[in-house]
Amino acid sequence: MTVAIDGFGGDNAPDEVIKGAAAAVAELGVNVVITGDKDVINERFSALKAAKKNIEIYNAEGVIEIGENPLEIRNTKAGTSMGVAFSLVKNGQADAFVSAGSTAALTVGGTMVIGRAKGVKRPALSPIMPSIDGNYILLDGGANLECRAEMLLQFAIMGSVYMEKVGGVKNPRVGLLNVGTEAEKGRDLEKSTFELLKNAPVNFIGNAEARDVPLGICDVVVTDGFTGNIFLKTVEGMGSYMKKSLKSIFMRNALSKAGYLFAKNGVKDVTKKADYREIGGSPLLGTAKPVIKAHGSSDAKAFKNAIRQAKEFSETGAVEIIENKLKQVDFK
Amino acid sequence: MTVAIDGFGGDNAPDEVIKGAAAAVAELGVNVVITGDKDVINERFSALKAAKKNIEIYNAEGVIEIGENPLEIRNTKAGTSMGVAFSLVKNGQADAFVSAGSTAALTVGGTMVIGRAKGVKRPALSPIMPSIDGNYILLDGGANLECRAEMLLQFAIMGSVYMEKVGGVKNPRVGLLNVGTEAEKGRDLEKSTFELLKNAPVNFIGNAEARDVPLGICDVVVTDGFTGNIFLKTVEGMGSYMKKSLKSIFMRNALSKAGYLFAKNGVKDVTKKADYREIGGSPLLGTAKPVIKAHGSSDAKAFKNAIRQAKEFSETGAVEIIENKLKQVDFK
Repeated sequence: MTVAIDGFGGDNAPDEVIKGAAAAVAELGVNVVITGDKDVINERFSALKAAKKNIEIYNAEGVIEIGENPLEIRNTKAGTSMGVAFSLVKNGQADAFVSAGSTAALTVGGTMVIGRAKGVKRPALSPIMPSIDGNYILLDGGANLECRAEMLLQFAIMGSVYMEKVGGVKNPRVGLLNVGTEAEKGRDLEKSTFELLKNAPVNFIGNAEARDVPLGICDVVVTDGFTGNIFLKTVEGMGSYMKKSLKSIFMRNALSKAGYLFAKNGVKDVTKKADYREIGGSPLLGTAKPVIKAHGSSDAKAFKNAIRQAKEFSETGAVEIIENKLKQVDFK
Repeated sequence: MTVAIDGFGGDNAPDEVIKGAAAAVAELGVNVVITGDKDVINERFSALKAAKKNIEIYNAEGVIEIGENPLEIRNTKAGTSMGVAFSLVKNGQADAFVSAGSTAALTVGGTMVIGRAKGVKRPALSPIMPSIDGNYILLDGGANLECRAEMLLQFAIMGSVYMEKVGGVKNPRVGLLNVGTEAEKGRDLEKSTFELLKNAPVNFIGNAEARDVPLGICDVVVTDGFTGNIFLKTVEGMGSYMKKSLKSIFMRNALSKAGYLFAKNGVKDVTKKADYREIGGSPLLGTAKPVIKAHGSSDAKAFKNAIRQAKEFSETGAVEIIENKLKQVDFK
């Protein structure tokens, strides 16, 4: 089992990538291929005194930056650290892909270089988000801003398979993100999707209101990529809001400062748990091989966890299970 | 200045409506008309020992419930407490409207019974939301699930006038809710709206990412009603999530329990401040007379504050200012 990791993707590359890869090899028993400027990577391995066992370095030139046209990952940017990692998976030299680089380029490369799993219309970015008593997966987090009902039906199936096989959730509950719980609520998209989900091979629990989702009412939240992206960034923004508000409240007077001494670890735990970036990478579900987007600010531990996700995604055969499930449904 | 208030709208009607109305008359110098079953209201006034000075009671039969077809507010439900309050404003017997009843019926009645302000395409529900250092107004919070760019342009103008005249914010900053800050981000709706807002008589600061909105980057947030409703319910859900998480963390052990004794007031303040329902009512902007939606769970204080909002909305002449501003723009 070999994971290709983009050595220069993310704010803390390549050092944290290297440390995370070394830890993953030691702890998870995987092989890793790191892509990027070979001289720099070798130099950093020495400087960091990181073990190179079961780690291969593949030379690549430059990085595709976040502002750049993501379509170029197939053309002028195919030789970058992300582009080469994609081609290693495409060519079978690696089984799964991890990068903390440009989300847009990762979506394009996953969809067009690695390619879609059989029967998949459009892959979806699928962040794992924290709820009160566990996690839920959100599809689509932003890969497809506008969607048809059939795409949302596929997202429901893909998310269910991932949560069951990789997340270990039995019979995951699927909710359709909507402005009310009643069946007739929402736009045409939600109304059509509701009808499709009623007859789909998933555990559909109906419409899910955004206010109930963080409280853990379902395991798979399905919506279009525009709404999903707004949802996940609102969750993120409210995490920051709470953190800042709590800090200013605790600094108000001597008594509250004293309280903070007792409470600060708890407060840190809560605000950290609310940060979906802490949970790990976001799979791009619907590609022919596992693709994991690690957060841009990933440290070594986050890279190790993203590699673990890629390994579990690959070893559970979730891609094939998704393909088989999709065959059961007659898509228009 | 007379405010018509739906005596039987909301979870705590009519008692909290009555207490809130009496407090509003005493503190704000307004007259109030309460609609609903006259005998019941009179009986509750006596039981609550509430002052009736400058309060008139207008008989009405029944209530339009949240599940009912909101269009009936014009027909079979025109004689309910909400329907009669609308007609009082329509006929000039009152200057502004307040209800904690069905949001859908309030939107229909505001738009179709009271009617739209001159030049307005579609009124928008406009909740006032908490940010780190103040408030912002969100349009549309859910009145129009699907919108065209010209509607969003109007929302930007209406929200700016309200925040300036009623909110006291000088030159309010308008942000377009979007999945990224760059001008080319979003769906066709956001791209078209961006172009319109660049040339509009508002202080447009560009696209606003949902993660930055709670941190106070703008005073007016513009989006379609589906996205706006998802956004505001996510804010609400994350408030509940944080409250529950903090509570369970503080109950973890003796030390954290001790910390909670010092910190609990601060924590309560933060979670309460994050609850947009605490701020007051949501104006339905774009109607010919001020319409305020009080939250369903409003208590006397919340009703008093909603009446205050209605008074300020009316006395600042914000409706006429909106009409004049809209004349400056050439809408398609």
